[in-house]
Amino acid sequence: MQTPPWESTQHSLQQTIEARLLAHTQNRWGHVPARLAESMAYSLLDGGKRMRPILCLGFAQALGPLQPCAYDAAMAVEMVHCYSLIHDDLPAMDDDALRRGRPTNHKVYGEAMAILAGDALLTEAFAVLSGPLGAPLSAEESGIRACLCQELAVAAGALGMVGGQVLDTDEGRPAELAYLLRLHKMKTGALIKAACRMGVLAAGGNAQALHAAETYGEAIGLAFQIADDLLDVVATPEAMGKPTGADAAAGRATFPAILSFEKAQAMAREQVDMALAALGQVEPTPGLLAGLARFAVERKH
Amino acid sequence: MQTPPWESTQHSLQQTIEARLLAHTQNRWGHVPARLAESMAYSLLDGGKRMRPILCLGFAQALGPLQPCAYDAAMAVEMVHCYSLIHDDLPAMDDDALRRGRPTNHKVYGEAMAILAGDALLTEAFAVLSGPLGAPLSAEESGIRACLCQELAVAAGALGMVGGQVLDTDEGRPAELAYLLRLHKMKTGALIKAACRMGVLAAGGNAQALHAAETYGEAIGLAFQIADDLLDVVATPEAMGKPTGADAAAGRATFPAILSFEKAQAMAREQVDMALAALGQVEPTPGLLAGLARFAVERKH
Repeated sequence: MQTPPWESTQHSLQQTIEARLLAHTQNRWGHVPARLAESMAYSLLDGGKRMRPILCLGFAQALGPLQPCAYDAAMAVEMVHCYSLIHDDLPAMDDDALRRGRPTNHKVYGEAMAILAGDALLTEAFAVLSGPLGAPLSAEESGIRACLCQELAVAAGALGMVGGQVLDTDEGRPAELAYLLRLHKMKTGALIKAACRMGVLAAGGNAQALHAAETYGEAIGLAFQIADDLLDVVATPEAMGKPTGADAAAGRATFPAILSFEKAQAMAREQVDMALAALGQVEPTPGLLAGLARFAVERKH
Repeated sequence: MQTPPWESTQHSLQQTIEARLLAHTQNRWGHVPARLAESMAYSLLDGGKRMRPILCLGFAQALGPLQPCAYDAAMAVEMVHCYSLIHDDLPAMDDDALRRGRPTNHKVYGEAMAILAGDALLTEAFAVLSGPLGAPLSAEESGIRACLCQELAVAAGALGMVGGQVLDTDEGRPAELAYLLRLHKMKTGALIKAACRMGVLAAGGNAQALHAAETYGEAIGLAFQIADDLLDVVATPEAMGKPTGADAAAGRATFPAILSFEKAQAMAREQVDMALAALGQVEPTPGLLAGLARFAVERKH
């Protein structure tokens, strides 16, 4: 069976990101205290799906040749995602021992180092995003980089990802659809949307392209989250690389728990349709971005 | 007795910073989950000395009228300092119950919220620094803001503050002056130096002014740290707002422990002299910056 073209694009972008992240740890972390650099790299180079940086580069390359700031935006988004996983796994938060089939950061390096590695990765994202060290930038690129920093900071902070995490850890949270939607829009949606928008910003895209990235990002962010909830019900621990059935065991208010499994499935498919419709002029012929949108609900892990 | 002029300048800048930080929490955090906003504000508005933002504004106003990005740089530096204190106080780190005479963040809001409040303040620093939300920036200001983001990110991250914290928590650390100097240069010096440099960058200062800010910042950063170590030996808990004598009780390798009390005092004074000498053209007549340098070693708390 021939690999569909969008999957080879995805694979090639994923390899590019892996190579850039590896080169970054090698070129920039030589003077970082060794144990800290090791702890940061343990989580950053852990073979994740790289969905956010792929979306970022996907939008950027749909609009023209990839510029240095698009690669930097992709790396920065992944660093923020990575830090959030390290902190989410901490004993005081979700207290998870496994992540993608490996011991979590604090299980290997201890709690203090995991907190600091997360802090350092979050900070590093903005070091990367603000420009190459010591190199002067054109006025155009400075403007783009200031916008990229703002986009990422707003999406990742108290009004976005961190705020969503707070809503998620609220023990008195209501088991209501509106609350769940707000929670996931902030906790996972904001960063996915930002990844898409940052690709457009890095490519110097217009307001129409930004709007498309926003609609697409919001929709597939939600579709991915609903699919995660559905997979926790039906997937095997082997396929997921972590225990499954945890949501139901904990009595957690998930999309299938609140809506029913079938209605949650339908809602995820609706979101994918919205994402595909938004692509219009950014990707007129279905390619990577359309493929990823479908993958959000069709994946088995 | 008449208040020396530099102290009234310091007081006025401190009030400006308090007012800006308060306005920021009121204007920008309205949609942040309430408990998170409360936890962030608890630590950010706790009446600290505001030394870093005062240094930032001090350098900026020595070079011309204060611009919006100077105020934003000052707030961002304080947010980073504040986040670092919240995380340093956590049970997995220094496990401190008191900070400036009040319960630490995690004692009031719990460990998970303290981790998240710290994460959010760090992220917010870059949201503030990258520009006013949704407002277009001139090419010049974009360039300055991209530089400010980079300056702060490098100083606060794995090569600076976070890296220094790792060195400080290393249980097998050698009791050597060279190690202690490297540790403090990263842990506290990098952010103080960045605060000074960011003031110059925000004011569009030249390379000479940047160099002066760097020398001054490094020297008073070290002087402050040595003075902290000395105060832990001689100050009262009431004056410090926290228990004293903790370094000696823990057998910690401090400047007085390694050098002797008198030699550490002399080293702090040397640093102050270096800082004063660097000021030259930035502050030709001794004012705020000279006063702060002397205060570093003359303070009683």
